[in-house]
Amino acid sequence: MSLPDSLLVTLRSHFPEASLATGDAERLAYAYDNSRRNAKPDAVVFPTEHAQVEALVQACRAHQVSVIGRGRGTNTTGATVPVDGGVVVSFERMNRILRIDPDNRFAVVEPGVLNGDLQQALKPHGFFWPPDPSSAPWCSIGGNLACNSAGPRTVKYGSPRENTLGLRAVAGTGDGFRCGTYTSKGATGYDLTRLLIGSEGTLALITEATLKLTPKPTGLRTMRATYRDVGAAARAVARIMAQPVTPCALEFIDDVALKLARDYGGDVVPLAGAMLMVEVDGEPDTLAGAMEAVARAARGDGLEELRIAETVEETQALWSARKALSPAQRTISPNKINEDVVVPVSRLPELVDGIKQLSKKHDVLIVSFGHAGNGNLHVNLLPRDEAERERAHACLAEVFALVIALDGTLSGEHGIGLVKREFMPLALQPSTLQLMRNVKSAFDPDGILNPGKLLP
Amino acid sequence: MSLPDSLLVTLRSHFPEASLATGDAERLAYAYDNSRRNAKPDAVVFPTEHAQVEALVQACRAHQVSVIGRGRGTNTTGATVPVDGGVVVSFERMNRILRIDPDNRFAVVEPGVLNGDLQQALKPHGFFWPPDPSSAPWCSIGGNLACNSAGPRTVKYGSPRENTLGLRAVAGTGDGFRCGTYTSKGATGYDLTRLLIGSEGTLALITEATLKLTPKPTGLRTMRATYRDVGAAARAVARIMAQPVTPCALEFIDDVALKLARDYGGDVVPLAGAMLMVEVDGEPDTLAGAMEAVARAARGDGLEELRIAETVEETQALWSARKALSPAQRTISPNKINEDVVVPVSRLPELVDGIKQLSKKHDVLIVSFGHAGNGNLHVNLLPRDEAERERAHACLAEVFALVIALDGTLSGEHGIGLVKREFMPLALQPSTLQLMRNVKSAFDPDGILNPGKLLP
Ligand SMILES: Cc1cc2nc3c(=O)[nH]c(=O)nc-3n(C[C@H](O)[C@H](O)[C@H](O)COP(=O)(O)OP(=O)(O)OC[C@H]3O[C@@H](n4cnc5c(N)ncnc54)[C@H](O)[C@@H]3O)c2cc1C
Ligand SMILES: Cc1cc2nc3c(=O)[nH]c(=O)nc-3n(C[C@H](O)[C@H](O)[C@H](O)COP(=O)(O)OP(=O)(O)OC[C@H]3O[C@@H](n4cnc5c(N)ncnc54)[C@H](O)[C@@H]3O)c2cc1C
Repeated sequence: MSLPDSLLVTLRSHFPEASLATGDAERLAYAYDNSRRNAKPDAVVFPTEHAQVEALVQACRAHQVSVIGRGRGTNTTGATVPVDGGVVVSFERMNRILRIDPDNRFAVVEPGVLNGDLQQALKPHGFFWPPDPSSAPWCSIGGNLACNSAGPRTVKYGSPRENTLGLRAVAGTGDGFRCGTYTSKGATGYDLTRLLIGSEGTLALITEATLKLTPKPTGLRTMRATYRDVGAAARAVARIMAQPVTPCALEFIDDVALKLARDYGGDVVPLAGAMLMVEVDGEPDTLAGAMEAVARAARGDGLEELRIAETVEETQALWSARKALSPAQRTISPNKINEDVVVPVSRLPELVDGIKQLSKKHDVLIVSFGHAGNGNLHVNLLPRDEAERERAHACLAEVFALVIALDGTLSGEHGIGLVKREFMPLALQPSTLQLMRNVKSAFDPDGILNPGKLLP
Repeated sequence: MSLPDSLLVTLRSHFPEASLATGDAERLAYAYDNSRRNAKPDAVVFPTEHAQVEALVQACRAHQVSVIGRGRGTNTTGATVPVDGGVVVSFERMNRILRIDPDNRFAVVEPGVLNGDLQQALKPHGFFWPPDPSSAPWCSIGGNLACNSAGPRTVKYGSPRENTLGLRAVAGTGDGFRCGTYTSKGATGYDLTRLLIGSEGTLALITEATLKLTPKPTGLRTMRATYRDVGAAARAVARIMAQPVTPCALEFIDDVALKLARDYGGDVVPLAGAMLMVEVDGEPDTLAGAMEAVARAARGDGLEELRIAETVEETQALWSARKALSPAQRTISPNKINEDVVVPVSRLPELVDGIKQLSKKHDVLIVSFGHAGNGNLHVNLLPRDEAERERAHACLAEVFALVIALDGTLSGEHGIGLVKREFMPLALQPSTLQLMRNVKSAFDPDGILNPGKLLP
């Protein structure tokens, strides 16, 4: 497979020298992402300007060649893998922060800006952009927007959909356009901004984003609570979410995950049936009251120990269990299947119980932890060999069915990409899927943008 | 004009007896809304179930007859006026609150539930639904969603787009569908929920909504600050929005509006160059600190007087100016043109100055006030006779041009409807409008849903 010569000539005219690559090494370097799926593109381009992206999509559309947007390839769903070749457009060189406007609480950025770099740049102004995937130092704003990526802070501050004012983009038609506003509210036509957020590069390529900023509270307090069992912890989550002080992190770790973390991290990690990590933020004089309100809700049947950190060192110690989890899992299984299902908070006990049963039934180790305040559970299946891998896949389908039965959905923040497409009909009615297909055609009539992703 | 007999027969089979009206009186009663535009529908139906709405749209599509969704007709843009006849579907009898789920922070409602009734029902649970148009006692959730309606609280808590989890609806194709989630985050396909919010009944009819609830803070404090001139007040707004404590109301009133309010309401209304009303909410023990932070930001060059209410009576007295405004305007002009433009907060001084100049140039009385924390200004043109009315319309076009030049947009919360359609090309590029038209076709290929609205 290679691109038609006439297309290459056109592309060269818009992407001089090192901004267009067709060599084998580059094609390989942009063939995969964090999903470990793999397929080589025919070319990789590195735009620095919006106009180049328009020219690219127009040229590729004329030749019916696919265009796959790419930030930093950290997604876990194969969302950037060029399954049928085509041109990968890597936004890594469109990485300027164009404007920080604290008076109006927004920043304008190019899509290749790293989330972590943006947060650093905002710090002196006293602001932050709430979406905080743990990949923040390495992932791009464009990727965050395209996946609606989130993190612990989402429970209080929302996901990219709640934190983006407007976009500039190029649709699959080849037309550049702006949508949204520079203002914090608007009722002028259809909300194309939110429609693009979470669309995984299948509707349009984002070339600029106007992000809504939030003032950074100057204080933070951390609490750790351990419980007799997962049910008791999950009920505490519902109690915490039913009172007025919303924590800025409300993380859950199940017994299997705790044990794993303790094996790896030592006895600074507590042994318990389940654990919650809770953080509250705010102005310093409000923190004690806020923490007390949350602690009151965290107490209840099944609580074993509740510790509130008084120093930075204690805070770090409390987080040690959570921090040990990722490396601990890797020691067990290099092939972990990492899902991020989400259910209404009060259904968490049923979800966690159900997953335990599926783990037994299919004889696959599963550890669960995640953003409990949103009901968002990272369900990690850890197969140790090929036989377990196959069982894990069978188990996965039942995990999704359980989640849907509990009024939940397939993904809270990682998206669908390549690997969850086949499960979409579990989550969405045929009529909803058909409308999504119609929307896809409205933006990308020839289906050239990121084919084979998101829609089944 | 009347409906084909065969359509009427089909409709009768789905809408028995008083749930279908074709009499002149009913047609007249559903011909107008708060815009004072007017056009009679051919029939009015009152569904009580989702299935009836599906049947209605399918039947009307088969006959190429228009269907116009209607809540309580309080919108100000002619958005419910059946400009080319057809069937008005009034959701006033689909008014059940289906579920209030405090543990999961959501409520499921039918579209005809009044905003005010929902707030009452949520109170005992300690929650509220943030969107708070001042029409709350009389307007429906369906209308709120279709217009992305907002109010003072939006500055802190967001608009319907930030406070809705999922919808059930019937597209212009006649297909019923569900979109969104019961969870507070999700990354499973395109965000059709937000796309429908603000679409003014042109894409789909909403038959059920899952609304995100927020715990109601138990404390509230109110402050009034008067300034030498509008510029000083607008700069205070920007200072307030740049510090971490976000008020739950930050309202602006200009000098002309203040004078009008004082003529009507007496000398409890202060005389000043401009005034801000600010409220902060939170747990009682945090209020003093929060108010102090906001007051610190409100102080600065041009401040004349700053009063913090200590009692309920004082709070009511401080709001008297704002309350007197609506009746005061009516005494001057029964034909007020009520716009709700929005600009970035820091551009408010330029907007207010520019409007003063346009008021002089066209010799039309204009009073400005509104939700300054969002940069959302209600610009009210008050023509006293026919000649002034004509001048007012000429002036309006220049107001919109000014707003766009200041990076703002046509509407913050009232929407476009019938009356602002012609201005859409001022605010949106041709490519953006074309994509909106494509989206319209994706949901409503025959253009039967609320024709003549939103898109030019
Ligand atoms: C260690 C680690 C931790 C992680 N933690 C989290 C977490 O806590 N929360 C979370 O949500 N995710 C997490 N992720 C997943 C991943 O980091 C996020 O999905 C991230 O947003 C992807 O950003 P990226 O720049 O790498 O995008 P990519 O992986 O390059 O692309 C992701 C998707 O975005 C599209 N895309 C990229 N740029 C554009 C653009 N400009 N226009 C249109 N489409 C575009 C791509 O086509 C693709 O569909 C983690 C990943 C790793 C490796
Ligand atoms: C005194 C007064 C004060 C007001 N204050 C405010 C304010 O502070 N902030 C503000 O934003 N607005 C305000 N408004 C405007 C108005 O109240 C809002 O736009 C409100 O949301 C309209 O609700 P409704 O039920 O009356 O809808 P309607 O006026 O009946 O309809 C409005 C739009 O929604 C569509 N629609 C209604 N129901 C559905 C449905 N189920 N599915 C699909 N489409 C539907 C209609 O087709 C129409 O396009 C005010 C109006 C008045 C009269």
